[in-house]
Amino acid sequence: MPWYQLDDPHDPRLDELARRYNLHPLHIEDARSEDESVKVDSGANYTFAVFKPIYLQPDPDAPAEKMPTFSTIDVFAGKDFLVTIIDPVCPATEEALERARRDGDDEHPGRLLYLILDTIVDRYFAAIDYFDDRIDKLEDAVFDNPSPDILAQVFAIKRELIELRRVLVNTRDACLHLQRDPNSIIDSEHQLYIRDTYDHVARLLDSVETQRDLLNNSLDIYLSSVANRTNEVMKVLTVLGTIALPALAISGIYGMNLKGLPFETSPHGALFVGFLTIVCTGLVLYVLRRMRWF
Amino acid sequence: MPWYQLDDPHDPRLDELARRYNLHPLHIEDARSEDESVKVDSGANYTFAVFKPIYLQPDPDAPAEKMPTFSTIDVFAGKDFLVTIIDPVCPATEEALERARRDGDDEHPGRLLYLILDTIVDRYFAAIDYFDDRIDKLEDAVFDNPSPDILAQVFAIKRELIELRRVLVNTRDACLHLQRDPNSIIDSEHQLYIRDTYDHVARLLDSVETQRDLLNNSLDIYLSSVANRTNEVMKVLTVLGTIALPALAISGIYGMNLKGLPFETSPHGALFVGFLTIVCTGLVLYVLRRMRWF
Amino acid sequence: MPWYQLDDPHDPRLDELARRYNLHPLHIEDARSEDESVKVDSGANYTFAVFKPIYLQPDPDAPAEKMPTFSTIDVFAGKDFLVTIIDPVCPATEEALERARRDGDDEHPGRLLYLILDTIVDRYFAAIDYFDDRIDKLEDAVFDNPSPDILAQVFAIKRELIELRRVLVNTRDACLHLQRDPNSIIDSEHQLYIRDTYDHVARLLDSVETQRDLLNNSLDIYLSSVANRTNEVMKVLTVLGTIALPALAISGIYGMNLKGLPFETSPHGALFVGFLTIVCTGLVLYVLRRMRWF
Amino acid sequence: MPWYQLDDPHDPRLDELARRYNLHPLHIEDARSEDESVKVDSGANYTFAVFKPIYLQPDPDAPAEKMPTFSTIDVFAGKDFLVTIIDPVCPATEEALERARRDGDDEHPGRLLYLILDTIVDRYFAAIDYFDDRIDKLEDAVFDNPSPDILAQVFAIKRELIELRRVLVNTRDACLHLQRDPNSIIDSEHQLYIRDTYDHVARLLDSVETQRDLLNNSLDIYLSSVANRTNEVMKVLTVLGTIALPALAISGIYGMNLKGLPFETSPHGALFVGFLTIVCTGLVLYVLRRMRWF
Amino acid sequence: MPWYQLDDPHDPRLDELARRYNLHPLHIEDARSEDESVKVDSGANYTFAVFKPIYLQPDPDAPAEKMPTFSTIDVFAGKDFLVTIIDPVCPATEEALERARRDGDDEHPGRLLYLILDTIVDRYFAAIDYFDDRIDKLEDAVFDNPSPDILAQVFAIKRELIELRRVLVNTRDACLHLQRDPNSIIDSEHQLYIRDTYDHVARLLDSVETQRDLLNNSLDIYLSSVANRTNEVMKVLTVLGTIALPALAISGIYGMNLKGLPFETSPHGALFVGFLTIVCTGLVLYVLRRMRWF
Repeated sequence: MPWYQLDDPHDPRLDELARRYNLHPLHIEDARSEDESVKVDSGANYTFAVFKPIYLQPDPDAPAEKMPTFSTIDVFAGKDFLVTIIDPVCPATEEALERARRDGDDEHPGRLLYLILDTIVDRYFAAIDYFDDRIDKLEDAVFDNPSPDILAQVFAIKRELIELRRVLVNTRDACLHLQRDPNSIIDSEHQLYIRDTYDHVARLLDSVETQRDLLNNSLDIYLSSVANRTNEVMKVLTVLGTIALPALAISGIYGMNLKGLPFETSPHGALFVGFLTIVCTGLVLYVLRRMRWF
Repeated sequence: MPWYQLDDPHDPRLDELARRYNLHPLHIEDARSEDESVKVDSGANYTFAVFKPIYLQPDPDAPAEKMPTFSTIDVFAGKDFLVTIIDPVCPATEEALERARRDGDDEHPGRLLYLILDTIVDRYFAAIDYFDDRIDKLEDAVFDNPSPDILAQVFAIKRELIELRRVLVNTRDACLHLQRDPNSIIDSEHQLYIRDTYDHVARLLDSVETQRDLLNNSLDIYLSSVANRTNEVMKVLTVLGTIALPALAISGIYGMNLKGLPFETSPHGALFVGFLTIVCTGLVLYVLRRMRWF
Repeated sequence: MPWYQLDDPHDPRLDELARRYNLHPLHIEDARSEDESVKVDSGANYTFAVFKPIYLQPDPDAPAEKMPTFSTIDVFAGKDFLVTIIDPVCPATEEALERARRDGDDEHPGRLLYLILDTIVDRYFAAIDYFDDRIDKLEDAVFDNPSPDILAQVFAIKRELIELRRVLVNTRDACLHLQRDPNSIIDSEHQLYIRDTYDHVARLLDSVETQRDLLNNSLDIYLSSVANRTNEVMKVLTVLGTIALPALAISGIYGMNLKGLPFETSPHGALFVGFLTIVCTGLVLYVLRRMRWF
Repeated sequence: MPWYQLDDPHDPRLDELARRYNLHPLHIEDARSEDESVKVDSGANYTFAVFKPIYLQPDPDAPAEKMPTFSTIDVFAGKDFLVTIIDPVCPATEEALERARRDGDDEHPGRLLYLILDTIVDRYFAAIDYFDDRIDKLEDAVFDNPSPDILAQVFAIKRELIELRRVLVNTRDACLHLQRDPNSIIDSEHQLYIRDTYDHVARLLDSVETQRDLLNNSLDIYLSSVANRTNEVMKVLTVLGTIALPALAISGIYGMNLKGLPFETSPHGALFVGFLTIVCTGLVLYVLRRMRWF
Repeated sequence: MPWYQLDDPHDPRLDELARRYNLHPLHIEDARSEDESVKVDSGANYTFAVFKPIYLQPDPDAPAEKMPTFSTIDVFAGKDFLVTIIDPVCPATEEALERARRDGDDEHPGRLLYLILDTIVDRYFAAIDYFDDRIDKLEDAVFDNPSPDILAQVFAIKRELIELRRVLVNTRDACLHLQRDPNSIIDSEHQLYIRDTYDHVARLLDSVETQRDLLNNSLDIYLSSVANRTNEVMKVLTVLGTIALPALAISGIYGMNLKGLPFETSPHGALFVGFLTIVCTGLVLYVLRRMRWF
């Protein structure tokens, strides 16, 4: 059974293969589109599948972090041929094809399709684990020191999860399609395997939902802690103002160019008034303390 | 096969056509209503469809931005006739009819209907791409400089997405109807094409949901950054008040008309007290620094 | 075919009609209950329907606004009789009965039922248009001048939409019931009309959902603009404090009863110190300007 | 037909009845559990039902308010016996059994079951009306004077509605079960009555949803009004600071021990400077007024 | 019937058992995976089940609190053999196996499976009760003294509930599977018991939803009370500033080195001016009181 592997969907050999194996123009158009989404479509003589393998790339903005990126594998799996198109080539697509070559055999194109899909789904688990680690770290960070920078990371992961969720939902639907469609290239022996893959994708989606819940928690923690800190700052300001008040009032009063103030002419006037100020301030502090302001 | 193209639903020729081809009064009423929504209704001898092509118009309030606007195409597709009504004429409706004229043929009114629908759906992708660009820009802007003006744009796009979503949901239902209704004018050969269009609309709806999620993210970013800035401003105010306190207290004390203050009569009193003030302020700054207030 | 029209559900004639036409006690009880909700129930020999026509009444609290109010029409539509009970009589119920009398005929009680329902549903569109206008005005108002008064209106409309939505959901279920129930009084000829009414109610519900989304937008706009204004006020206060600081500090220093201050004895001391104060304030303003505080 | 009424599920007579009528151990266990929820289970020879009648008790914390409390009725309705267990006895359970005794008859255990259920559901309407009144009052109160105390009441009602909703959802499922289960004790004559009860419970659930929406509105009103008041307080503080500034600055300047200030030696200096201060303050007030700060 | 109990999924005896009883490699792989989730899978000759018993462990961070932890039990239940794998051993798994050994018998592997599942589900009720207690305490605490520490506990429980909910959803699906799958090892006699367990799990899920609602209430209470306290602090600051203003303004005025102030030369000037200050402050306090500022 021939296996044609193309690294560029615009390769003219694809047109030739389309003619030879009677591939549907809509599928060829899909394979060449920039903005494909995961899907499976089974025709009379072959199954067309689009998958989106994920791989973790170092983030150019923050080299310490990794950025999940999606590649594309198009598969035309007929009874006596297999066409795969990869765009762009990346470790994830390499791994998928390698495992299919190693563990599959020419007689079962459905098994080859399963092996490619299964390797791709296994990779998603690694991505989810990576997100789990980062969310854990962020949650600790948001409790310890809630800064706008951490919030930006929360929103960045939220954005990446929105993307991943979309791919996973489509992958789940594709698994369902492979199980149910009577034209599907998957033979009955491999149905159990595809059902297993379906369970894995469902569990991944479950994890993504949990992670979104956790990120929403982090956002709530952030907002409540900012509200709380504003409250704390306000309190400090008010306590400060309250403490300063006796000193300012008393020194203002003794700054007046008037006669008749007590201790006015006493040689130790400053001492007495200083003592009075300290007593007043102590009293204010005591009252604030009793009212649990600090 | 005759194709009647009207540019005004109130054209009296429509009444004549209704009589000749036995068009249902409810459909004529729909076609003439101001507030039609997308739908498909298949009768015994023809399929009635209402579509809402989108086109991007320069926004009169902000000439740099474009505003998505909806036109209306009504189609009566019978086995041996086609009536289309356009209101108002716009580039999107022109393009749809042109492509149908070019790629369709008189023998297949179902194909003409498909071509019109497919061109309209392709246009929605352009609108979604336009929103994607604007949301990307807004998200960056809201991080860099969260201003009420940007928020107004977020809400404006939210509003436009609510509208677009409504049209897309109805278009998806219309595609489903064209596939499933046994009276539908779409022949079996074109079912696959309509299913492809259905997939496109489903993907568009998916994108709209993603965009609404992203806009909600932007709103959360805005609110959290306003809360954060209020917190920052409060901190600056409090730090300022704290720094000013020693100077105000000391100068207040030495402004008192009392005797017995240290350095009172020294010729370098001002120097000593100035030095004392600077030391006190430095101490306050050091304490604030240790408590991580700035 | 006799048509009995009662203006009061407690009219003893209803008991007589119940005996003559064998109306179910639960239906009579429903018709006399204060708190009916929209429903359709088809028995062996008649269909019982409760509808809630809407009409816009001037609001006693705000004469410029209108207030949507619900009336009730109970219909017992048998093959050879029709009983309608109206409570209270209002323009909406008048219109519904009038149109039924004008366009219906005695031979088709199902058509009479359809005409009453259709007129009631048409009225809902007017109510939705009225809400659309008010929401548009509120959204503009909340952007221009977010006041608690406008917010109160937002919540009032939200409340009215909750009520309207409830009536519409029940009306949609009633339409479905009229289509599906084999005992329904609606004959096959009028099924298409009822389906059309069902589509209208579905579209109305869609509009209500959109309006609720828009009101939530208004609420978000309000909250974000209040947060923003608080931030602005805080900034003004801080800038003010910062600007006042040099003047207060310098005047405080020169208010001290100490010797050794520069310009102390100069006859133009006030001029020099005034100039110093202005320079310091200018410097502070320049720094704040550079840090984009105003 | 014997009717056994027990006031305590731990009564040893229950074990005896279980032996005589062959009651399933799981049902006996349920009846004796502390934490039963509403359910219906139909076996071969009897139907087991758990209901939760509601009654309004004076609230010990706030004697002016009432507190909805749930009791439990377990019913074993066989073709020739009826066992009811009440725990604890309350006005609601009394009323339910009394009506069943008055309006039911020994020949129809299904009718007795229906009468008990219907009386319980009627009581829920009273509870909903009570909540409606309290929510109305709270909504007015939150607009007039938003205090933490009112908020505590909002959350208390929310909590009670969560509980009530849970009971109602289970009661709705129980009604459905009584209609659909072929083993159900309800005969065909009473199916219409059970459907009516089902409609009532569905309407109650609808009301609970509406009330939760209204409580969320109240919470939004509270939060927006607190945000607004904080804004108002900030404005007052800033206006105050702005108004005080000229007086403080001018009096500070004239408090300096320097020469060369205007009016320094004039005998009416205080008058002139006082006039100047008033003019400056008036100017500031005018500017604030123009900028719509108050 | 032999029952093999392993305490380590990596035990080589498992491979031997897999060979002897023809266990599917995917199931062995699942049993050895680190990250299993609850599921049931019925093959031709045995049913494979994964359960997650819960137990409450003292929390190392807060010894007063307990931390729900999950263990794992894998069951291979064939017609003439039973394999159980426990990882790690804990009181919950001990209890489950013990009860199965005591109440089950060798002839019914389905009954053994049911007994294990039922004991595990009973344990979940204890965990839910524990959460109920903690949420009750937190809700009281958040009303009395809303601190960030309490909020941290709210979020910690939220996180634990997310985890528990995931396990319960999967357990519910597993119960459904055991009821519906024709290959299931559960015989018809025990179907009623499994349905009872299903009802218990559904009720547990209901409780988890209620608890999440209550935690969201606590979060809303916290946020509204922080907003309220900020408002209170602001008010105190403003009232303080307002009260201090007369004293500061009057003492500032009399600190000016100018002539012509009233009481300037009076020997009781300080007395008169002091009295004036007290009157002004009293006036301000009276106005604030009238405007309900405190």
